[in-house]
Amino acid sequence: MTDESSVLAANAAFYAAFRAGDIEAMQRLWAESGVSCIHPGWPVLVGRDSVMRSWQGILRAESRPAIDRREEIAIVAGDEGRVLCLEVVGNATLAATNQFRRIDGVWRMTHHQASLVAEGVAKPASEPSRRLH
Amino acid sequence: MTDESSVLAANAAFYAAFRAGDIEAMQRLWAESGVSCIHPGWPVLVGRDSVMRSWQGILRAESRPAIDRREEIAIVAGDEGRVLCLEVVGNATLAATNQFRRIDGVWRMTHHQASLVAEGVAKPASEPSRRLH
Repeated sequence: MTDESSVLAANAAFYAAFRAGDIEAMQRLWAESGVSCIHPGWPVLVGRDSVMRSWQGILRAESRPAIDRREEIAIVAGDEGRVLCLEVVGNATLAATNQFRRIDGVWRMTHHQASLVAEGVAKPASEPSRRLH
Repeated sequence: MTDESSVLAANAAFYAAFRAGDIEAMQRLWAESGVSCIHPGWPVLVGRDSVMRSWQGILRAESRPAIDRREEIAIVAGDEGRVLCLEVVGNATLAATNQFRRIDGVWRMTHHQASLVAEGVAKPASEPSRRLH
């Protein structure tokens, strides 16, 4: 398994935990320290307590949306891995960054940020996005 | 100089290059490889060519806005540094992540993402934001 494929597997685990509303899986995935998170429309959250509290609220909500993730790209340098992807939520598309650190051989999440892509800019379908040019 | 203060200095250099419209300073600041960027409302840009082309367009624009950055927090682990901050642009507030890697002793930028904070959520004035609680 390459570094890229293993960090993509960690990224998949993040979205699986979201989909399942699995707070314990989310807690295991996030690193114990040095974490931060910026949910769409939210200000900055820093620190594990603050970040995990936000996920508990989101994962317990009945109205949690389905996320269809697309166009994942992994960038790995040593024990730092970053996955960029699009999140398609209904008619909206978000651009997301998921940052991981390999700790004791396991990719742990250290940062997540998702931001709305303006309408008419994103191309989440099969055609290549502008990043490929 | 602590790791935190040196990565905050790199963060200040990023905003100074933006303010001055200094493309060469921006090019020196960004790492040669492994870079990505998500401008507000944009999809994901990956790769130095794509990212630097976007900055050239932004820095050459006559309508570049003034950014008042606030509430910077640096998180450093080894040679990876991340600065979270708010960017106040007119009446709007954005939450920004600036990721740096220390390469040959110099903090180089590897990722930037800024996303609009929903109205009524941000508190960019002197009162503490929710991340402090």
